[in-house]
Parts: sequence; structure tokens; C-alpha cells
Amino acid sequence: MIGIVIVSHSPKVAEGVRELASQMAQGRVKIVAAGGVDDDTIGTNAERIHGALIEADSEDGVLVLLDLGSAVMSTQMAIELLPEDQQKKIVISEAPLVEGAVIAAVEASIGHDMEKVNAAAEAASTMRKLM
Amino acid sequence: MIGIVIVSHSPKVAEGVRELASQMAQGRVKIVAAGGVDDDTIGTNAERIHGALIEADSEDGVLVLLDLGSAVMSTQMAIELLPEDQQKKIVISEAPLVEGAVIAAVEASIGHDMEKVNAAAEAASTMRKLM
Repeated sequence: MIGIVIVSHSPKVAEGVRELASQMAQGRVKIVAAGGVDDDTIGTNAERIHGALIEADSEDGVLVLLDLGSAVMSTQMAIELLPEDQQKKIVISEAPLVEGAVIAAVEASIGHDMEKVNAAAEAASTMRKLM
Repeated sequence: MIGIVIVSHSPKVAEGVRELASQMAQGRVKIVAAGGVDDDTIGTNAERIHGALIEADSEDGVLVLLDLGSAVMSTQMAIELLPEDQQKKIVISEAPLVEGAVIAAVEASIGHDMEKVNAAAEAASTMRKLM
């Protein structure tokens, strides 16, 4: 089963999304939050993301969801700190953070592979909320 | 200037998004969080959203961003509790929560009207994070 890392500029958002997605997946998926910078203010931190990638590590890979494009550089730095064989199993998703994380968690929990999970998460961006 | 309400099933997500968006808008926009249910667990609560709508009230209207489609019913109930003339000024956005809130806050802070702010927020769903 793939692991999931939630990267946000806000520690509260990262932790809240982790809780929400975990609950939707009935706790069956390893989901790790990496939000904020060292003093828990707004920003992203490559070391913190690196730690989360290690914690969420799985042989099926780790899907990273992030809030804003400005989180991509820290995430890429965090990935580069991993051994090369692990780097290849990390995918950064284009999915919207909250909406995508919930879907990714559910899809991962039923054993779908990385490609399927990420496709479902990214499709959240075109799903309507209002009927 | 329009007001913004952040509705999430998670109190931490709502509060974190409020902080993040407020910071991006340099505190110039009234942004109110309405997350979770009464005991601060996962869910949405019409009364809490109603309170947030009143707090964010502005003659230019209030834009509501929400995390999942399942938050729409509580939000609509909350809107129906308002006087009719206020109801008309509330718009529920299709935007992705975190990504849309940041853009909405910035657009609102420069004085754009409801239509422009919501269009910009909803366009977040097609913005790429990865280059």
C-alpha cells in the first residue's frame, strides 16, 4: 500500500488534512503531515518533509500532496536527500490538497497502485462540490 | 471589500487556511474559519457556519470556500438562517479549499468584486503546481 505525505505552508492545515484523510481511510493508510517551518510558522521545510517521506516510506511508493507551487522546491530538496532507489518511488501530485488527500487516502486504502491513486486524486480538481 | 468564510470538516484545516490566506492578504481581508462540529471533531455544523457568515458579513458579499461536497448542505442551511437580503450576497465557491482561499484573499485584498474574486479562486483548480 502506498504512503501519503501532506505538505502545507501551515502546520495546522497539514495536520488537519492528515487527520481528515486518515479518518476517511479508516486509519488503514500511512499518512504523514509535514507543515510549516521549524518554529511552526508559515512556510515549508525540506528537512521536515524529508522526515515525513522516510516515515511514510513504502515499497509501493509515497504520494506527496502539497498546498501551493511554492512548496515544490522544498519537496524536491527533501526527495534529493533520499537514497536514489527511494527517490524513484516518490510522486508529487498536482491534486488540490484537501480534496485530493481525501480521495488519495480512500483509493490507497483499497490497495490501488500509485498511478491509480494519483489519477483519482488529481481528478478531484474537476469534481463539482455544488450540485 | 468582500468577506471570506472557510468551511472545513476539520477545525485545524479551517483555522490553518484562515491563517495562511490572511497572511497572504497581509491581514487586509476579513476571513473567518468555520471548521468541525461542536466538540471540535470532524464534520460541519450549520450554526458554526452561520456565525462565521455573520462575522464575515460585508456589503460587497461573502465568498464561502469549502473542502468537500458534503459541506454544502450545512452551508446552505447556514445561509437560510440569514435575513433574505443577506442571503443574496453569499456565494459558495467551487474552488479547491486551500489553493482557492489564498487566491481569493489576495484578490479580495486588492478590492476586486465577488465575481472576479470567485473566478480567480475557481481557476486555481487548473493551475499547475509543478513546473
